[in-house]
Amino acid sequence: MALKSFIHVHPDSHFPIQNLPYGAFKTHSTTLPRLGVAIGDYVLDLSEIAKSGLFNSPLLAGSDCFLQPTLNKFLAMGRPAWKEARDTLQKLLSSTEPALRDNMELRQKALVPMSEVEMVLPMEIGDYTDFFSSMHHAKNCGTIFIGPKNPISPNWFRLPIAYHGRASSVVISGTDIIRPRGQGHPTGNSTPYFGPSLKLDFELEMATIVGPGNELGKTIDVNEAADHIFGVVLMNDWSARDIQAWEYVPLGPFLGKSFGTTISPWIVTLDALQPFACDAPKQDPPPLPYLAEKISKNYDIALEVQIKPSGQKDSSVVTRSNLKNLYWTLTQQLAHHTINGCNLRPGDLLGTGTISGPEPDSLGCLLELTWNGQKSLLLNGTTRKFLEDGDEVIFTGCCKGDGYNVGFGTCTGKVVPPRD
Amino acid sequence: MALKSFIHVHPDSHFPIQNLPYGAFKTHSTTLPRLGVAIGDYVLDLSEIAKSGLFNSPLLAGSDCFLQPTLNKFLAMGRPAWKEARDTLQKLLSSTEPALRDNMELRQKALVPMSEVEMVLPMEIGDYTDFFSSMHHAKNCGTIFIGPKNPISPNWFRLPIAYHGRASSVVISGTDIIRPRGQGHPTGNSTPYFGPSLKLDFELEMATIVGPGNELGKTIDVNEAADHIFGVVLMNDWSARDIQAWEYVPLGPFLGKSFGTTISPWIVTLDALQPFACDAPKQDPPPLPYLAEKISKNYDIALEVQIKPSGQKDSSVVTRSNLKNLYWTLTQQLAHHTINGCNLRPGDLLGTGTISGPEPDSLGCLLELTWNGQKSLLLNGTTRKFLEDGDEVIFTGCCKGDGYNVGFGTCTGKVVPPRD
Repeated sequence: MALKSFIHVHPDSHFPIQNLPYGAFKTHSTTLPRLGVAIGDYVLDLSEIAKSGLFNSPLLAGSDCFLQPTLNKFLAMGRPAWKEARDTLQKLLSSTEPALRDNMELRQKALVPMSEVEMVLPMEIGDYTDFFSSMHHAKNCGTIFIGPKNPISPNWFRLPIAYHGRASSVVISGTDIIRPRGQGHPTGNSTPYFGPSLKLDFELEMATIVGPGNELGKTIDVNEAADHIFGVVLMNDWSARDIQAWEYVPLGPFLGKSFGTTISPWIVTLDALQPFACDAPKQDPPPLPYLAEKISKNYDIALEVQIKPSGQKDSSVVTRSNLKNLYWTLTQQLAHHTINGCNLRPGDLLGTGTISGPEPDSLGCLLELTWNGQKSLLLNGTTRKFLEDGDEVIFTGCCKGDGYNVGFGTCTGKVVPPRD
Repeated sequence: MALKSFIHVHPDSHFPIQNLPYGAFKTHSTTLPRLGVAIGDYVLDLSEIAKSGLFNSPLLAGSDCFLQPTLNKFLAMGRPAWKEARDTLQKLLSSTEPALRDNMELRQKALVPMSEVEMVLPMEIGDYTDFFSSMHHAKNCGTIFIGPKNPISPNWFRLPIAYHGRASSVVISGTDIIRPRGQGHPTGNSTPYFGPSLKLDFELEMATIVGPGNELGKTIDVNEAADHIFGVVLMNDWSARDIQAWEYVPLGPFLGKSFGTTISPWIVTLDALQPFACDAPKQDPPPLPYLAEKISKNYDIALEVQIKPSGQKDSSVVTRSNLKNLYWTLTQQLAHHTINGCNLRPGDLLGTGTISGPEPDSLGCLLELTWNGQKSLLLNGTTRKFLEDGDEVIFTGCCKGDGYNVGFGTCTGKVVPPRD
C-alpha cells in the first residue's frame, strides 16, 4: 500500500509524502529565511520540528542544520544524514504516526500554508557551472551557428562540455527578468548594434545541487558521484542570443547569460527520484575509463514550457521535453568537473544545459523552436520569434508514479524592460 | 618632503607608508584570520587599532569592519571609508605622530613581524571573471590556435572579451599547484590523450578587487567605475594548454583553468596607485559610448616572472611586462561587465587576462614564450617548454616612485604532481 500522509494531498499535487522537496521560505512574521519541506499545500517548517526534538536520529539529534537560513550545512552532511531526515519526515507526516498529527500546537506552528510564504534561494551558491549535455541541442545550435556540416565538434562525444556561469545572478522563481542591454553583431562595416537585446530566449534546463564537495586537487569517482548530489531543480538559463553570438568567440558565453538564471524553489532529492531512474543512452564512442559508470542512469522527468504573454489570460505550451534526453548523465558531469582537481562545494549548482529532445516540439529554447527567428511560433492568437516584454515563461517538471507525482512545481519569470 | 614612517622601511621595500596594502593573516596564536596592512617588514593588525579606538573618523568610528575575518564588509563601504582609513593609517604610522609610535604596549600588540604570519585569502570571492585585454596576447594566441590570418576576432576591438572563471579554486600565494589530469586532443582517430597535463603553463595577470557592487539589473557608468574598484593584486591564472585546447570549443575554457588560480596576499589600493597612473592606449575603432571614458587611465606597474626549478638555488627571469600593456582599462572592464545588468558583489575578482607586451621577452605565458612548445626557453643551464613538477613560479610587481616603491610583493606557487 502506498505511503499516505495525514495531511490531505490532492492526487495531482507535485508534493505528496513520496516527494518532500527542500526549500527556504519567509513569512510576514519571520525576518531570516527558514528551511522547510513541501507537503501538499503546506510547508513543514523544519526549524520547528528540530526545536521540538523530533529529529532524534544519530546524525541529526542535536544538530543545528535545520536552524540555518540556508541548506548549505545540511548539504555538507551527506547522504546518511539526508536519509535519516527523509525517514524521520516520512514517518512524522504519515497517517499512522501520532507525534505531529495529534499535536495541534506543533501543527499550528510547523505547518504553514504555502499561500502565506515567500520562497527564497535555498542555498548559497559558491559556483555555478553550466553543461551542454543534450545532443539534439548541441546539434541544432551547431547547425544554426556553424552550419549543417559537422555541427557537433568532436570533443562533444568525448567529454561533457561545460562553462563556468555567474553565481551572483541566480534568482528564485518569480523574480522579474530585466531585459539586458548589450552589443550585437555589426552589419557589414558599421559599429555593432547596441541596445536592449532583440533576441531574448529561455533555456529549459535542470540543475544538480551539490552536497559534500571535494578538496582542491582530489577527484570524485564517477561511481561515487551520486553521493555528492543532493537533488535537482528546474532552471531557466535566460539567454540573449544576439549578445551571445557576438561576444562568445573565443572564450564562450558571458554577458549573454549573466543577467539572470532562474531556479525553482523546491529541491527534489535524488532519493525521491529513485523510482523514476531509467537507463541512460548508450554512448558511442564509449567514454574514457574515468567517465565509465558501472550503472549509468537518467531520470524520467517530463518537462514542459509555457509562455503567457502580457495581458493574456492563458498560457500556451511551447515545448515538451524530458530529462532523459540527456546524453551525459548528472554523475558523469560531476565526475568530469573534478577530474582536474577542481573543488566543488556544498550548494554548487550544475546546470544540465538546454534539454532538447529529437522531435520538433521537444526543443528546449526559442533559438531552436524558431530556428534563430527564421520562423514564428504560434501562441494562442499571437506569435513569437523571441521573448517580448511582459512575457511570463513557466517551466514545470513532474515524474508520474503509481497514483502519485514527484513534481518540481514551477519555475517562472516575467520579462520586463531595462530599468535605467 | 616625502611622508616617512617611524617604522624603519628599507628603500627597496615594496611596503612603505605610501603603499599600505590590505591583507588577512593568521599567527600561531590566532584562530580566525585578522585584517592588516603591510608596513616595511611588519603587518599592522587593524583589529588592534580598531579596538584601541584609533579609527575615529566619521565612517569608521564604531564600525566593526576591521574586526571581521575578511575585507568584504570594508570593501562594501566604498571610497569615502577607504579614504578615511588611509588618512588615519598614514597619520598613525608617520614619524611625527606619537599615538602609536610612543605607545609601546599597543606597538607590541599591533605590529606583527611579517616573518611570523601566514597570509590567507583576504576576501570571500563571490564570482571570479577573467578578461582577455592584452592585444599582444590575443594576437599571439590567435596566431598559435587559429593561424596568422585574422588572429584577433573582430569583436575583440569592440568589447573587453571575458569569461566566467571558477571562484572555489582561487588560492593564496604560496599554495602548491597540483598538476591537473584531463583529456587532450586525440591523434587522428585514436581516443583522446588522458593523464596529467603535459602543457602546464602560468599566466601573468593582475586582478581588480571589487568594492561596492551593483543591484541586479542596474549598470555602473564607466566614468564612475573607479569608485567600485578597491585595489589590485598579482594573479597567476595557471592553465593546462592541452586540456584547454581540446575542451574549449564552443563554450570556452573550463577544466584547463579551474584547478587553481593564485593571487598575491596584499591588495594595493587604487589610491596608492594614483601617482603611477598613465595614459591608456588610443583605441581604434573608438569605443561605443558606454565604454568611452572621460579620462582613460592605465597604471605603470612593472611586472616580472621568474621560474625556480626544483633543486636549483636560483630562479631565472623569464619575462618582464607591465600593466600598461593592456588595451582595455580596468574601468572599461568593470563597466562592460555590468552593461547587461549583471550584479557585481564586494570581493569579486576581475582578472585582466595575460599581460603580454610587444617585445619577445615581455610575453606573459609559456604558450607565447615557447610558441606552444615549438622552441625551448633557457633557464640557467636547463630548458623549459612547459612547467615541470617542482618548478616554482614567482611573480613580482612594483611601481617606482621618487625614492620609494609601491609594490605588490610576490605571487608564488610550486607545481606538484597529481595526488591520487
